[in-house]
Amino acid sequence: MSEYIEHDKNGVSVGLVEKRYFTFAEPPECMELEGGAKLGPVTIAYETVGELNAERSNAILVCHALSGDSHVAGYYTPDDPKPGWWDLYVGPGKAIDTNRYFVVCSNILGSCMGTTGPASINPATGRPYGLDFPVVTIGDMVRAQRRLIDHLGIDRLLAVIGGSIGGMQVLEWALRYPDRVRAAIPLATTKRHSALAIAFNEVARQAIMADPDWRGGNYYDGAKPARGLAVARMVGHITYLSDEAMRRKFGRRLQDKSDFSFNFDVDFQVESYLRYQGTKFVERFDANSFLYITKAADYFDIKNQHGRGSTVRAFAKARARFLVVSFTSDWLYPTYQSRDMVKAMKKNNLDVSFCEIKADCGHDAFLLPNERLAALIRDFLERVSHER
Amino acid sequence: MSEYIEHDKNGVSVGLVEKRYFTFAEPPECMELEGGAKLGPVTIAYETVGELNAERSNAILVCHALSGDSHVAGYYTPDDPKPGWWDLYVGPGKAIDTNRYFVVCSNILGSCMGTTGPASINPATGRPYGLDFPVVTIGDMVRAQRRLIDHLGIDRLLAVIGGSIGGMQVLEWALRYPDRVRAAIPLATTKRHSALAIAFNEVARQAIMADPDWRGGNYYDGAKPARGLAVARMVGHITYLSDEAMRRKFGRRLQDKSDFSFNFDVDFQVESYLRYQGTKFVERFDANSFLYITKAADYFDIKNQHGRGSTVRAFAKARARFLVVSFTSDWLYPTYQSRDMVKAMKKNNLDVSFCEIKADCGHDAFLLPNERLAALIRDFLERVSHER
Repeated sequence: MSEYIEHDKNGVSVGLVEKRYFTFAEPPECMELEGGAKLGPVTIAYETVGELNAERSNAILVCHALSGDSHVAGYYTPDDPKPGWWDLYVGPGKAIDTNRYFVVCSNILGSCMGTTGPASINPATGRPYGLDFPVVTIGDMVRAQRRLIDHLGIDRLLAVIGGSIGGMQVLEWALRYPDRVRAAIPLATTKRHSALAIAFNEVARQAIMADPDWRGGNYYDGAKPARGLAVARMVGHITYLSDEAMRRKFGRRLQDKSDFSFNFDVDFQVESYLRYQGTKFVERFDANSFLYITKAADYFDIKNQHGRGSTVRAFAKARARFLVVSFTSDWLYPTYQSRDMVKAMKKNNLDVSFCEIKADCGHDAFLLPNERLAALIRDFLERVSHER
Repeated sequence: MSEYIEHDKNGVSVGLVEKRYFTFAEPPECMELEGGAKLGPVTIAYETVGELNAERSNAILVCHALSGDSHVAGYYTPDDPKPGWWDLYVGPGKAIDTNRYFVVCSNILGSCMGTTGPASINPATGRPYGLDFPVVTIGDMVRAQRRLIDHLGIDRLLAVIGGSIGGMQVLEWALRYPDRVRAAIPLATTKRHSALAIAFNEVARQAIMADPDWRGGNYYDGAKPARGLAVARMVGHITYLSDEAMRRKFGRRLQDKSDFSFNFDVDFQVESYLRYQGTKFVERFDANSFLYITKAADYFDIKNQHGRGSTVRAFAKARARFLVVSFTSDWLYPTYQSRDMVKAMKKNNLDVSFCEIKADCGHDAFLLPNERLAALIRDFLERVSHER
């Protein structure tokens, strides 16, 4: 990382960062996945911010959500127009203070931002995997992250933190590697994907698979299933906002017009916003990765995967201190789902703090400026780093 | 209507009914639409149940929602496998008692169940309209219904009732033709379509328009945009249910399997349900009609269309007695939206009853068995029919 430091509107930035790569499971070794398939080699794209201390005790793993990547904070170049996806919370003096902590963020398995996924070359064929890529789970993503953490020489993480699908990875870390996580901070997430959340994902997947350009997932040598992926992203965007947020942000305001068009062009600002989000997403994201990551989220179910039908039993394995945060207007993973996991943690006498933050911006709240969230994370990390 | 009476699981049925047609606005007369276009001829498909009394004072107009039709109750043939869409509430001795009331239900303008819509033949070309069909509004639908009510010789309706988009028509009737409606019963509806509701409709429309078989709406001589319409319907179905309803109905139960498939086949029952609903819908509904009707709903806004920016001013025109019903788990048109209209009604000293029914089945609650809803409708109609 360079020493270049820039002041931006979010305060002091971490400056320039660079994406790095770690490859493991070279054939014939391979990584055995939860679904039974083998995958190798596996490359993990990751970025780090801050300095690992001599005791190697200040490392925080940040886990990203569906469409995120390893670029958690800072800029790639001096003229980079925007910083990493969680720059609001990660940086010098910020909630996750990079003057004190060593932050690691890696792109998840199955994604398309540098880590091995369906768009990667299948060594068996010399062509992109497409649907020959095996279905991966949140557990597989976390097992790959563990290999990276091993590689970085970190025996025990000070904390694992993330929202949404990132929060699922946090829970998975706490249950799968209890001795390697001192603190776990799952935000805006759930212990098992609900029927409603599965339903939204399934509609989004069907939109992609309905696009003739998807061609069974083998589209890498031709047109991308852009229309299907755009619709899928639009479905997602609705779930990230809330009724209140949409009312405040768009209401019934018209786009560039004084009256209705009386045709099927854009009339309302909310339509324009969704179309824009859909189109923009297609430029940067792989449709097959969308299928794989949503499937992993749908499969996520701590109760059955770690507790043989009991959430309480699942958390019996955990050792970490927990900070669980939900948001009032998040209807994708509503507060009751966080409360359920907090109850199970408490029944195991775990050290758990829980906060439901009043926010009208829906599921996406953890990505937006929120002083309460920043303070909760900062204070919790402060406390954990002083307790041994 | 035949005298054939059948007892079914919902109690006594209205027996056999038949679809009829009324055509008006033959060119060069034509119907002038709110958007400025002219349409003609206009055919309205409708059905009636019960007998119009000598005073012509017992007529109730039932307005259907997005995918409904004129077939509100009873059967078309003795071996018809299922009755009309609101047979639970319309029939002898039921909430809308056809021994007492004369029920009229017509297919809305822009639909595809017998009333003129985008799949109808454009007399100017001799081919289906496709996107040459003009965009219609809820106001246009109601103006066409008024022509039917005129044709049936009914000067004043005892009541207009309907849920969702049907409820919008109810409100439109009460404001547009105050002297022709004694009672208005809007169920699970809104006074203006919210940004969230518009967003869902827009995603559904984009799914249809993204299907290459849609071909700008000119698909009637070839393959239908079946995949796009199926995705659109799936989006709709999510909004009709609630988080609770989905949990209760599906949870995370697997379809025909003891474990995950680890591919993109159906894993969960909720996925199977959505795919089935999507596929089934394609058989009976026209994709262009879906576009037109959702657009009409998006344009619906009593405040601006009838009140020059004030909902209170909009209801100043109304004369009807109102029964407004919302459902606790309806997140498409949440209770606060019904409360808003009730407040505006009360500020105009209108006779209004309001009830929020506790129901965990989401927006679709008005279509499902609900004793409370049945009792409210029955008692309200009883009261209104005795007041002169």
